[in-house]
Amino acid sequence: MGCARARRAYDSAVTFRGSVRERRPHRFRRGIRLHPAQTVVVGFAAAVIVGTLLLWLPPMTLEPGGTSFIDALFTATSAVCVTGLTVVDTELHWSPLGHVVIMLLIQLGGLGIMIFASLIGLVLARKMSVRSRLNTAAEAKAVGYDDVRGLVRGIVLISFAIEGLTWLFLFPRFLFGYDYSPADAAWHALFHSVSSFNNAGFALYSDNMIDFVADPFICIPMSVAIILGGLGFPVIMQLRKEFTRPLHWSMNTKLVLWGTIVLLVGGTAYLAIAEWDNEGTFGPLAPGAKLLAAFFMSTQTRTAGFNSIDVGQMHDESWVVMDVLMFIGGGPAGTAGGIKVTTFAVLFFILMTEFRGEGAVNIFGKRLSRAVHRQAITVALVAVGAVMAAIILLMHLTKLDLDLVAFEAVSAFATVGLSTGITGDLPPTAQLILVVLMFLGRIGLLTLGSAIALRDKRILYELPKERPAIG
Amino acid sequence: MGCARARRAYDSAVTFRGSVRERRPHRFRRGIRLHPAQTVVVGFAAAVIVGTLLLWLPPMTLEPGGTSFIDALFTATSAVCVTGLTVVDTELHWSPLGHVVIMLLIQLGGLGIMIFASLIGLVLARKMSVRSRLNTAAEAKAVGYDDVRGLVRGIVLISFAIEGLTWLFLFPRFLFGYDYSPADAAWHALFHSVSSFNNAGFALYSDNMIDFVADPFICIPMSVAIILGGLGFPVIMQLRKEFTRPLHWSMNTKLVLWGTIVLLVGGTAYLAIAEWDNEGTFGPLAPGAKLLAAFFMSTQTRTAGFNSIDVGQMHDESWVVMDVLMFIGGGPAGTAGGIKVTTFAVLFFILMTEFRGEGAVNIFGKRLSRAVHRQAITVALVAVGAVMAAIILLMHLTKLDLDLVAFEAVSAFATVGLSTGITGDLPPTAQLILVVLMFLGRIGLLTLGSAIALRDKRILYELPKERPAIG
Ligand SMILES: [K+]
Ligand SMILES: [K+]
Repeated sequence: MGCARARRAYDSAVTFRGSVRERRPHRFRRGIRLHPAQTVVVGFAAAVIVGTLLLWLPPMTLEPGGTSFIDALFTATSAVCVTGLTVVDTELHWSPLGHVVIMLLIQLGGLGIMIFASLIGLVLARKMSVRSRLNTAAEAKAVGYDDVRGLVRGIVLISFAIEGLTWLFLFPRFLFGYDYSPADAAWHALFHSVSSFNNAGFALYSDNMIDFVADPFICIPMSVAIILGGLGFPVIMQLRKEFTRPLHWSMNTKLVLWGTIVLLVGGTAYLAIAEWDNEGTFGPLAPGAKLLAAFFMSTQTRTAGFNSIDVGQMHDESWVVMDVLMFIGGGPAGTAGGIKVTTFAVLFFILMTEFRGEGAVNIFGKRLSRAVHRQAITVALVAVGAVMAAIILLMHLTKLDLDLVAFEAVSAFATVGLSTGITGDLPPTAQLILVVLMFLGRIGLLTLGSAIALRDKRILYELPKERPAIG
Repeated sequence: MGCARARRAYDSAVTFRGSVRERRPHRFRRGIRLHPAQTVVVGFAAAVIVGTLLLWLPPMTLEPGGTSFIDALFTATSAVCVTGLTVVDTELHWSPLGHVVIMLLIQLGGLGIMIFASLIGLVLARKMSVRSRLNTAAEAKAVGYDDVRGLVRGIVLISFAIEGLTWLFLFPRFLFGYDYSPADAAWHALFHSVSSFNNAGFALYSDNMIDFVADPFICIPMSVAIILGGLGFPVIMQLRKEFTRPLHWSMNTKLVLWGTIVLLVGGTAYLAIAEWDNEGTFGPLAPGAKLLAAFFMSTQTRTAGFNSIDVGQMHDESWVVMDVLMFIGGGPAGTAGGIKVTTFAVLFFILMTEFRGEGAVNIFGKRLSRAVHRQAITVALVAVGAVMAAIILLMHLTKLDLDLVAFEAVSAFATVGLSTGITGDLPPTAQLILVVLMFLGRIGLLTLGSAIALRDKRILYELPKERPAIG
């Protein structure tokens, strides 16, 4: 799109939120203005609080007696942050009304993240265009929409469309394959479609998706929805518009696609080989089902968090590999968590550039913006720091082994929701740490990245430089 | 020093090795030339091989029967890389002659690393001076010597001087405090002085330094030698010459000093609090001895690797904290391992800069060279990658828990030598992985950093830039 359209798009963006401004706003002039990063923190906190209060109500539970506050808080945070960690049995604890609330919180959380992250992209594209008019067209194309109303509408439509398609695959399977009543089949298909596309990982079964481990008609549609949600909105939009013109794809699209393929295939291969004979996981399955389960579980690290096998029975080295995969997560501006495939890819390409001794980081024929280097390091370091601090705290509080605690912390921070099974038995203090970790992992990383990217950095003068020794 | 002197220093540097050249050498013109990074790899590999063959000889063991090849290889690598991990009982397995060989390998390894790393600094200073004549003086001062012969002589003299001073404290204590014969006291004082300053962590006692846990006359002199060795040669030289003029200190000196103080004090405080009542470690000690032991153990993560308590009895969250401390390690161009305090500090300051929204990373009133950003990321990422890969491999090979394996892998890679006690019982394949890890951690990281720093990066043209979304 041209500069005029970009300007209109930006103007809509700043009008829409009343807060997205190019410069950091003066907070005490004309009342309190929120930085966009603050807006999203407040918004998500409000959603968590409302969700907690709703889930706390007695009618939300199947048995009378209601839910403890900490369980309601944990479940609401887990739903809004689309994590999927659970402290109560989702099938047996919550009433159908509770399930509906959880599903709505998931949908709200997923849409909220996608819309906010995409808005940031829009403003960034505008900022870029102010600085160097050359790249406006490419940048705007990467963002993939023209104005804010169109953006929000696009995200909602795409979400519902993919969820609807997933529903079309799941509904007949539940109806004919499992003899559900039409209403039950429709509801189960809807809940799991929403939970899949939004990478939430909540399932309506006590043992998550273990009963469906060998059923490709359930596992494959869910995996596709998970992967699409994990690619992120900008990538989905670009694929929709320019699927046949890969040369036009933005660096973001290429990084996310390549990264996702490498991680999915690598994860599938590793899990298939490592768990092939494990009697607690893939051992009892037929070869085809082993491969399906390996693919399904590899997909979950992108960061949906369903499980079709008992994660607690996996080899502990598989947990470590999954820790790495979950930590990386999915694509930006999508429903997946983690530090993001792009962050990992940027760090990887910085490494390759240093190995090759080149001066600039060039990826797919484009130079990587230098501001992105420090942004990627910052996100990765903050993530490592948060996870390490949580691990040490959780070990103090629980006396559990490092492998269990590390898996739980990474799963919470990357909003995956897989667990070795310790979540429900943790003391409330440890569960609160997980609540904070889920919120930080979902909202913190995004707002951190955005705040950094949106900030106006003017270098007024430079000090003389010096280099300490490294390594 | 002026430019003429810098040029002379550089000329000596290139003459000295016959291989240190400003550009990457053409390898097949005028015979094979080794890159300085290759020189050091070949040199250390040769030292390991000679050490292995020596330790393999029957006279090196106390009992007849000699040493297995893998044990000789492991011990030689551990000594040359000044790691200190052991697969046999150092006191009971080796003969006095074996102890002498181990001590000489330690001395050789420590000197080799310091000399090579400082030479790199010298060449870097020269390169910097070619590019921007402004900083020559400061850079050269940071390196702290004038020519290569003087550099080597300086390193050897400083090493022997500090080892000698440590000996002067240890000798009377062994003589009068423990009733050793004068010859025994002299030998034990010598061995432990060398092992301390070179951050090797080998001790002449079956349970390392546990018998001396409450003896400040042993623990303090050894800790001082360890810390000095861990500061690195450039820092020692600058402190010696300009101790009273902190404003003249280089960024390297300031980063190493501040980082070391923060890590030492933080580690001491954490260990004292966490292990205070642990009956397996500090529990039975008097309060003063608890503090001494906490300080001594905190010092060991800088990366000497002696132990005055049973590491295997520590809380497993203390292991995780020590993993972090060991991974960071000590100062560059010294005898310590790890990714180095400077690397960690640079990453920390990059983070702070992003948080503050500033355009350039300014540390102590100087701007951090941008090339150092990517260098620090590269070193940290390679280290994380190597340790993670080793952890997953070791878990496959040993079926041991993550906490034990992670501690062992970090200890080997950061050349610390602390262990929860599993080293000797590992299968030979796992021990071979540790051998590779020790070599990589000591030689690999240094040569990687040097190769990157020494490389001539000429940016001939720049591609149009693009920024993917991060986080
Ligand atoms: K999830
Ligand atoms: K050591």
